[in-house]
Amino acid sequence: MNIELDFDKMGGLIPAVVQDLSTGEVLMVGFMNRPALLRTLNGGYVTFFSRTRNEPWTKGESSGNRLRLISCQTDCDRDTLLLQVQVEGAGLVCHQGTRSCFTEPVALPAADSPATQPAEV
Amino acid sequence: MNIELDFDKMGGLIPAVVQDLSTGEVLMVGFMNRPALLRTLNGGYVTFFSRTRNEPWTKGESSGNRLRLISCQTDCDRDTLLLQVQVEGAGLVCHQGTRSCFTEPVALPAADSPATQPAEV
Repeated sequence: MNIELDFDKMGGLIPAVVQDLSTGEVLMVGFMNRPALLRTLNGGYVTFFSRTRNEPWTKGESSGNRLRLISCQTDCDRDTLLLQVQVEGAGLVCHQGTRSCFTEPVALPAADSPATQPAEV
Repeated sequence: MNIELDFDKMGGLIPAVVQDLSTGEVLMVGFMNRPALLRTLNGGYVTFFSRTRNEPWTKGESSGNRLRLISCQTDCDRDTLLLQVQVEGAGLVCHQGTRSCFTEPVALPAADSPATQPAEV
């Protein structure tokens, strides 16, 4: 029996977690439709589907920080992907110039307002 | 200025990647609404919002494999969370009895049909 991924839960999209294979660092999360995933598996570089631009988006195409696919797994519900990659170029995946997009601590709303404030729920 | 997380892109939900702090392993992805995130930050254990049951869902409540929150970051778009956790109990996060939910390799559709077939695009 062929096993299908579940693209229906999110209207044709599936979230894809990108992890640096060598360091284990979680770099970013993007969304893929079926063509983007096929292009990723065929071409060996991670292509998402941009929800804002409504088009395929090969990560790093202009910056050179492309994500070379090493392995791809799905989870027990088959509605999410984990992509293990090697980052090319300068290795700065985030457009803000950091290796990972996950750089901002999240904290509970505080009664006081310190000068530097983490992201708030 | 207080920085708000973006719950609007997915109709009140935000994807949350759960990573084992000690091993770096990506364990699962769930979704949170604002109350689930507040409960997680307040209580110290990961609570999702179940899309299928339409209710809060504290992971491991019955199995004992609870996810103790160590740190929480958001990304540059503030529309995704990364939760680093310590797994309690037997450490088997997936209901199928494995540490991680991401156990199934994804492959391109093949012309032939081997007996053991990975998940297919």
